[in-house]
Amino acid sequence: MKNFQLLIGIILGLSATLVKAQTKSPNIIIIFADDMGYGDLGSYGHPTILTPNLDRMAAEGMRFTQFYVGANVCTPSRAALLTGRLPIRSGMAGSDNSGNVLYSYSTGGLPQSEVTIAKALKSKNYQTALIGKWHLGHLPEFLPMRHGFDYFFGLPYSNDMGSSATPLPLYKDGKVVEQNPDQRLLTKRYTEEAISFIKKNKSKPFFLYYPNNFPHVPLYASDDFKGKSKRGLYGDVVEELDWSVGQILKTLKELNLDNNTLVVFTSDNGPWLREKEKGGSAGLLFEGKGSTYEGGMRVPAIFRWPGTIKPAQTNTAIATTMDLFPTIMNLAKVPLSQTVLDGTDLFPLLTGKKEAVRDVVYYYTRDKLYAIRKGPWKAHFITRPSYTKEAAVVHDIPVLYNLDTDPSEKYNVSRKHPEVLIDIKKELEKHQSTLVPAISHLDGGYKKPNK
Amino acid sequence: MKNFQLLIGIILGLSATLVKAQTKSPNIIIIFADDMGYGDLGSYGHPTILTPNLDRMAAEGMRFTQFYVGANVCTPSRAALLTGRLPIRSGMAGSDNSGNVLYSYSTGGLPQSEVTIAKALKSKNYQTALIGKWHLGHLPEFLPMRHGFDYFFGLPYSNDMGSSATPLPLYKDGKVVEQNPDQRLLTKRYTEEAISFIKKNKSKPFFLYYPNNFPHVPLYASDDFKGKSKRGLYGDVVEELDWSVGQILKTLKELNLDNNTLVVFTSDNGPWLREKEKGGSAGLLFEGKGSTYEGGMRVPAIFRWPGTIKPAQTNTAIATTMDLFPTIMNLAKVPLSQTVLDGTDLFPLLTGKKEAVRDVVYYYTRDKLYAIRKGPWKAHFITRPSYTKEAAVVHDIPVLYNLDTDPSEKYNVSRKHPEVLIDIKKELEKHQSTLVPAISHLDGGYKKPNK
Repeated sequence: MKNFQLLIGIILGLSATLVKAQTKSPNIIIIFADDMGYGDLGSYGHPTILTPNLDRMAAEGMRFTQFYVGANVCTPSRAALLTGRLPIRSGMAGSDNSGNVLYSYSTGGLPQSEVTIAKALKSKNYQTALIGKWHLGHLPEFLPMRHGFDYFFGLPYSNDMGSSATPLPLYKDGKVVEQNPDQRLLTKRYTEEAISFIKKNKSKPFFLYYPNNFPHVPLYASDDFKGKSKRGLYGDVVEELDWSVGQILKTLKELNLDNNTLVVFTSDNGPWLREKEKGGSAGLLFEGKGSTYEGGMRVPAIFRWPGTIKPAQTNTAIATTMDLFPTIMNLAKVPLSQTVLDGTDLFPLLTGKKEAVRDVVYYYTRDKLYAIRKGPWKAHFITRPSYTKEAAVVHDIPVLYNLDTDPSEKYNVSRKHPEVLIDIKKELEKHQSTLVPAISHLDGGYKKPNK
Repeated sequence: MKNFQLLIGIILGLSATLVKAQTKSPNIIIIFADDMGYGDLGSYGHPTILTPNLDRMAAEGMRFTQFYVGANVCTPSRAALLTGRLPIRSGMAGSDNSGNVLYSYSTGGLPQSEVTIAKALKSKNYQTALIGKWHLGHLPEFLPMRHGFDYFFGLPYSNDMGSSATPLPLYKDGKVVEQNPDQRLLTKRYTEEAISFIKKNKSKPFFLYYPNNFPHVPLYASDDFKGKSKRGLYGDVVEELDWSVGQILKTLKELNLDNNTLVVFTSDNGPWLREKEKGGSAGLLFEGKGSTYEGGMRVPAIFRWPGTIKPAQTNTAIATTMDLFPTIMNLAKVPLSQTVLDGTDLFPLLTGKKEAVRDVVYYYTRDKLYAIRKGPWKAHFITRPSYTKEAAVVHDIPVLYNLDTDPSEKYNVSRKHPEVLIDIKKELEKHQSTLVPAISHLDGGYKKPNK
């Protein structure tokens, strides 16, 4: 008889949660990996990195295969996700006179005029936390608490930005509580903090933004994971991140929050190929971090929301991190302001109501538009290998790929499809004629102090 | 009350099947794709080819990520799978004086001295069928019926080997029943034949070997699939093959044969990169068909056997198609003869009893040993790009990769690990001193008649 009782229990549990889901604003969790490539998860084809928790998350939800970030490096990519806007609009894109990202000696940051997902959700009484890496300005006026986060535990920038002059600070709430924290323990501590935040807010709507510092170099795994993966330290670090995701999903299940929580997992840009075996893999995609080829800007993305997103879906529609802002605003019933957004509500994709919600992607390096994708077609106006001294090549006739049939960008078909080039050129002109670029706040890139 | 009845039904059904599984020899189904690359399935990371049936098969079973074929082209790879032996032992490897594979004008074939899985299983009264492509000799003495198959429906060689002089023959049993069959209908017809064979033999042990001709060029899909995939015709063809696998698995479920049937899905070699968008993708692996880099010889492999193989497993152990012979012989309780085998029983991997059963892989091109893998290390003695006029390069100091940490074969570490090179050289000497190469039967490669 035990099985029958269990079944009744499951059915009653389900109905209770469904009723709840209709009355309460959904919780939102965004887990953001750092420098993880398209090919680094089991469910995206990596042969020796085992990610059973993320694979299960995909099996319980929707896996995107054409999901993009707003920029090919850290700072602008994070700005894009949190604001739903191309970094060139928020001043978070680099320029010829600046670096790619904010450094420990930078004085800029995300302007107060920008509205983050966290700040917008505060209008609906969401509890908001950032556990992990910020990287949108570390002077007091730019810190997460000034951008809508009730709580911040983590690092203000990348985990390789500590030095003897400026040791890596660990923040808790508004304060630096440690210098140079033991990085082997970061993922464990982030996980504990994330779980504690979820438990504390289980009966209120919450937004948890969890940008883990890894697998960005330098790589650190805890003793439980060091040496565990066949892939070496990089694999250990990804497998610990996978464990961390598993712990969070387990907590949601235990607290009966599964059916009222949208969990998104993705990465801020492609793998840092310069780091060789310490960097990740873009799978079948070409190039990595810093590049406007697919490997630089297309990332793994898994959405899970039992009861709303059907299990075991693969979605080949184009989507971006900038779509999260309007998606979440609609879910939380926050009216959108007049600010220009570069995102589109993904809800119709998540529920299978539509097969596509957007067909254009812009590929910027700093403040220069290098390429545009429209539907299956991607035209490169400028190309440059990432992290080399090689100059950018401007193409008189853009290089054209059909990404649906040629995801590895191998076969230039520009001569066969002049009509596509004309169409994309129109898209370019429309974009550039309406765009109002902000002045870059990423100062300091070329004012690096002597060490 | 309906749910409870269903549950009782499931439980009773399960116990009945489990009892049956212990008393009856398991059925074996091997589905063999042609030229499908490591990266061509959803569950191996392809972004625009949708393979829900194979993904579900993986979710219900075990997906291998370091699974190899016995040769990087058709004929020898098929000989390796069916005999459990390196093609150089059976005369099915090419030589300097022959082609890579058998052609329509070849007169050779798999010698009668070789024992195929089908022939061996006949000793235990298995019903055996080959539905699809043979490619181990098309003269009467080499046809499947002479190698243990009770039934043969399909083509004697590749689907691109028809010509005006020798139209492509379709065999049914011992006879040619059609010339130049409509290739758009091949997968549908193979599927019907396979299902009909399974239904006919549902109460006897059976071995179904189903080597589909696709996605080898020329690509053909039925009207139901043409234009369906974002990936273009190649994707259509793979998606139809995925459908075919789904139909077979559905039949097994309907006939209550799931728990007594091992189904294996894999491919004969890597993608034919020469064919560009008409060829597949090796994902993150380098190179393709015809090459001894990983992309040529590492393929997708999914094993499914509910009740024996746990669901949703990813296995990173080294395994090969040559391991199927001893695995199947042990399952069917056929004693192994004194013939030298290059395979090892995979059952301990499938049931999770062992983490590894073999650690060496040999990479041949024709009758030349190009590379050896031992554990994570792969030493290339000879390298050559596939399908080019470029000559092979013999390396005085072998090129050495750690495939576990560097699956894309990017970072040569031979200078850092001389001890590994010494160890692999011993492996090479051991292999070559014990190997008795057969004379190649792949005649005709350079005796191509004028058309």
